[in-house]
Amino acid sequence: MSKQLRFSANVNTFNACADRYVLSGYGQRLTTEELITAATRVKGLTGLEVVGFWHVNDDNVLQVNRRIRDAGFQVTCVTPDIWASARWGKGSFASNDPQVRRAAVQEVKKSMEWARQMDCKVVDLWFGQDGYDYPLQADYLAAWDRLIEGTIECAEHLPEVNLVIEYKPKEPRTHCFIGTVGKTLLLLEKVNKANVGAMIDVGHSLMAYEVAAESAAMLQHFGNKLFYMHFNDNWRLWDDDMTVGMVHTVEMLELLYWLDRINYEGWYALDIFPYREDGVCAATESIRWIQGLHDLLDKIGRERIAEVIANGDAMGASALVREAFLG
Amino acid sequence: MSKQLRFSANVNTFNACADRYVLSGYGQRLTTEELITAATRVKGLTGLEVVGFWHVNDDNVLQVNRRIRDAGFQVTCVTPDIWASARWGKGSFASNDPQVRRAAVQEVKKSMEWARQMDCKVVDLWFGQDGYDYPLQADYLAAWDRLIEGTIECAEHLPEVNLVIEYKPKEPRTHCFIGTVGKTLLLLEKVNKANVGAMIDVGHSLMAYEVAAESAAMLQHFGNKLFYMHFNDNWRLWDDDMTVGMVHTVEMLELLYWLDRINYEGWYALDIFPYREDGVCAATESIRWIQGLHDLLDKIGRERIAEVIANGDAMGASALVREAFLG
Amino acid sequence: MSKQLRFSANVNTFNACADRYVLSGYGQRLTTEELITAATRVKGLTGLEVVGFWHVNDDNVLQVNRRIRDAGFQVTCVTPDIWASARWGKGSFASNDPQVRRAAVQEVKKSMEWARQMDCKVVDLWFGQDGYDYPLQADYLAAWDRLIEGTIECAEHLPEVNLVIEYKPKEPRTHCFIGTVGKTLLLLEKVNKANVGAMIDVGHSLMAYEVAAESAAMLQHFGNKLFYMHFNDNWRLWDDDMTVGMVHTVEMLELLYWLDRINYEGWYALDIFPYREDGVCAATESIRWIQGLHDLLDKIGRERIAEVIANGDAMGASALVREAFLG
Amino acid sequence: MSKQLRFSANVNTFNACADRYVLSGYGQRLTTEELITAATRVKGLTGLEVVGFWHVNDDNVLQVNRRIRDAGFQVTCVTPDIWASARWGKGSFASNDPQVRRAAVQEVKKSMEWARQMDCKVVDLWFGQDGYDYPLQADYLAAWDRLIEGTIECAEHLPEVNLVIEYKPKEPRTHCFIGTVGKTLLLLEKVNKANVGAMIDVGHSLMAYEVAAESAAMLQHFGNKLFYMHFNDNWRLWDDDMTVGMVHTVEMLELLYWLDRINYEGWYALDIFPYREDGVCAATESIRWIQGLHDLLDKIGRERIAEVIANGDAMGASALVREAFLG
Repeated sequence: MSKQLRFSANVNTFNACADRYVLSGYGQRLTTEELITAATRVKGLTGLEVVGFWHVNDDNVLQVNRRIRDAGFQVTCVTPDIWASARWGKGSFASNDPQVRRAAVQEVKKSMEWARQMDCKVVDLWFGQDGYDYPLQADYLAAWDRLIEGTIECAEHLPEVNLVIEYKPKEPRTHCFIGTVGKTLLLLEKVNKANVGAMIDVGHSLMAYEVAAESAAMLQHFGNKLFYMHFNDNWRLWDDDMTVGMVHTVEMLELLYWLDRINYEGWYALDIFPYREDGVCAATESIRWIQGLHDLLDKIGRERIAEVIANGDAMGASALVREAFLG
Repeated sequence: MSKQLRFSANVNTFNACADRYVLSGYGQRLTTEELITAATRVKGLTGLEVVGFWHVNDDNVLQVNRRIRDAGFQVTCVTPDIWASARWGKGSFASNDPQVRRAAVQEVKKSMEWARQMDCKVVDLWFGQDGYDYPLQADYLAAWDRLIEGTIECAEHLPEVNLVIEYKPKEPRTHCFIGTVGKTLLLLEKVNKANVGAMIDVGHSLMAYEVAAESAAMLQHFGNKLFYMHFNDNWRLWDDDMTVGMVHTVEMLELLYWLDRINYEGWYALDIFPYREDGVCAATESIRWIQGLHDLLDKIGRERIAEVIANGDAMGASALVREAFLG
Repeated sequence: MSKQLRFSANVNTFNACADRYVLSGYGQRLTTEELITAATRVKGLTGLEVVGFWHVNDDNVLQVNRRIRDAGFQVTCVTPDIWASARWGKGSFASNDPQVRRAAVQEVKKSMEWARQMDCKVVDLWFGQDGYDYPLQADYLAAWDRLIEGTIECAEHLPEVNLVIEYKPKEPRTHCFIGTVGKTLLLLEKVNKANVGAMIDVGHSLMAYEVAAESAAMLQHFGNKLFYMHFNDNWRLWDDDMTVGMVHTVEMLELLYWLDRINYEGWYALDIFPYREDGVCAATESIRWIQGLHDLLDKIGRERIAEVIANGDAMGASALVREAFLG
Repeated sequence: MSKQLRFSANVNTFNACADRYVLSGYGQRLTTEELITAATRVKGLTGLEVVGFWHVNDDNVLQVNRRIRDAGFQVTCVTPDIWASARWGKGSFASNDPQVRRAAVQEVKKSMEWARQMDCKVVDLWFGQDGYDYPLQADYLAAWDRLIEGTIECAEHLPEVNLVIEYKPKEPRTHCFIGTVGKTLLLLEKVNKANVGAMIDVGHSLMAYEVAAESAAMLQHFGNKLFYMHFNDNWRLWDDDMTVGMVHTVEMLELLYWLDRINYEGWYALDIFPYREDGVCAATESIRWIQGLHDLLDKIGRERIAEVIANGDAMGASALVREAFLG
């Protein structure tokens, strides 16, 4: 019998998505209350992610949490906003400005506290603005030292809340310091805290020419460090944040296989930007793809998959997938 | 003696740049008046581009033009806004909705009229929203027919104003219909109007794995269709809209060489997004790189360049550039 | 009822594949006779491609043809070798050396004659060596003129044999002149001969960030110029020449849909390099994927697909594919 | 005064280069003796790399070494051949076949011994065949365990010889296990031997969307692990193995700056494939670019560079480089 997957989504999934051309967004802007209501229309969704200060703050955290619970969801992740205003434009934890670094660490600590108050185990550390745009612009070594130092400080702040490093090769900087699974594992080694692990955002992994299944396996193999997953799809060269299934179908199947094989126990969270699609429909479609592909693994038989892998048998793998998809 | 290059820039160069994370922009928002004033601080800049409805409309067009002239600039290009609001989210000229197509054509015609009123010869047709995001989403043939038809209609509206097709492989759609120099030349053949040509945005060309010099040469060779140029730089995989010079230095030199060789007579316009840089400084730096590289061509000697090209002599070309840069 | 697809493969599919590291090949080198015998083991295969001089020459052409016929195959394409020896290293039709250009044109004419003798309608013009590696190396305009001129000369040589332009963005040169579907259509316009069309190699199209379905539709829309198809798959950034199905599954489905919709009547030929796989198994697996995906189109219903396309309904398309694959 | 850089090159630089199309090579095949003679014609070259079994074996190692010394060179690196024959096609250290793994380890040990006999400190571990081509083909965890285990065994064999991990994202496999600087640092942590470090091949780093300067800085920062450097250039998407300077000019300048700043003391070795160029000319040109860019650092002033970096001042960096190149 198939394992029951637990699905989450960022509440912004249901909001108007904007890009650098359509700054006002492609759809309608909703309140947090309306976003939660929209989420209830997604079958199978039982978790929600929120962003610090956007959706929760010291004043409303308990109330928002109650509202989310009442609507039938758990809060699965709080993401501190250390990347969405001009203040962080030249970096957060790795900024050259010690005051900005301090402020960024404070933001994260606040989000950790809000997470604890909402009974949420995961705070997402995405260093989106920590990087560089031009050659001869960055002090790579100072940056790494600062990222390690800030992460340690946050980790020690609340050991019962997990920090998950979300790596991404680029955007909004042309190069981000923590851009690949390998760099993430290096950071985790240097930070060396039980409550600091990683998430894989599938699209970020694709951008880095990684196979997400491999990255997931590595994170578990070297310290059981895969704490969380963000699902989406793209055309491999940019973080298109598409719904799951239509571009990298077989790689998604492989990822789901490996998540079970390495005993991943975390949430299956969506991180999609349905710019021109209805958010409820996009989330529903993504969940159906993931659950459907996951169910297919049992139909194929995990031992048969294990066997082709053990033999490095590419054509055997092809036949298994083909028969499963096409009969 | 070096040819005097004529430099232009979009007035937005001097405004706060935003991306999908920092929607409010990395800097300060200025009025059109303030943008023009900022432009006067860029040495060597004698042209400005404006966006239809953002900066000019039926009511203010003469007044804005006078202000621009008084500040010492010509208007070199008007870009109709057929891509910056939700209305155009699923396409403009190629939209499935005939009313949207009609509205988009109207926008372009209005910009053509404003251009004429401002004594500006160039209107930029960038079909940014005309494309698709997912497999099995687009009717490719209907899209092309509509793009051709709409462009012809606009071309006939005011034959004395030139329309320039600005191709780009992706963004904001994951795939844009008019994405490469080859597709652009095809469109030009099908439209077949004297007042419809193309521009090359160097960054878009890099994204398409083109060498911009080759694309420029082709546009001139097949009908003298290179009407305009947008300069910027990027890391080849995305439209980073960086200042000129620091990434693709030699390719820029080659482009400047070919622009002269093919008798390009148009403007050297900047299309940069200096998110975290001062706009005046970024524009100044770009102009100095372009002019400096252009001056270098005379120092190297155009006959010597022509000779290595005629021989396909890569190492000869390398030596010429090396000696010019490094002495 | 499903249309019966006609499958072909290059006879080299069954030979040892080599790369620049393993020059002696990953498997066993076979004679042409042995290659044909191997091909008979691939169920559903009824066509074979051969390479001029490698497999056929003036002396053996009739004998090879008889052998191929006797084994149950048609010759579907002859590819002139204008790219596999040092002689062509700096170009064939576009070489700076008029003698090399002449020799290349002669090679193509010979292959056209062999094709006619074998009752084969298609000769593949792949200008792999016609391009450049470095900035400031190529005379882009001379190259285009030469490519057009040489192609016209060949086309006129035997009007009853079709020449198909096979575009590819790079390899073996870092840049090839005829690299995209747009440039191919431009070349076809300039050549303007009834017996000159194009093929799409799916992998080349993926490398160019094209969606092959779109490229196919364009080639038919602008002159019924899609004469042939090469099937394979890759990871989008290089011509990995993999078997069909495991990476770009849905894009392949879309391509098969559009090939029917545009009335493509040509062969479904494999162009794969099964370096580490058994060639018979790799070809069989590819054919099963293509036929299986094609059959699925009927199961889904082509009217339902047409409807989601007409509406630009990405989530509708997603649901159709998902239900077809996952039930 | 400028630091004197020590330049090396693989002896194959001077041999005919082959690719998968031109298997016999674009030039003339030379003997080892002739290759060494060719190398003497490259001004500034004082080191040579050899490949185990290709150029040295148990019988000829002392004689080849003497010949190389007599010609005025040091042997700077021995590369074991664990990737250039069908035997290694499905992997070397990470092969599923224990006998292949054993054989690969033996090859490396032999190369280490030859290195010692030739007074060479560096043996290059490039796991080119250790990877996978298709989804659902690889056992990622077994692979990593085997790579770690084999590397440890080799490291212990001769502690006075340094092993340098040469990472590369792909080719000849579509995915290689040790593909990025981050994964390399992880491997080094797990191997944890004083005589195991890394090299950066600039082109491999570019393919991985790394900035080589950053990768170099990281390798030194986390354990002084940058033991060797391979120089070349490419168009960022493939290992084109071009001469230095013409594509990523400023990134090369930045790399040279950081190599000094992190006290890199190793060789500046060329790893180029001058398919269509004369090898002596290609090597000479590369050395002149590297030395010329390095000299420029002093002209610019390293303190001025350090200052723009400390400030993250991209436009300041741009101005420094521009003035240095263009006056």
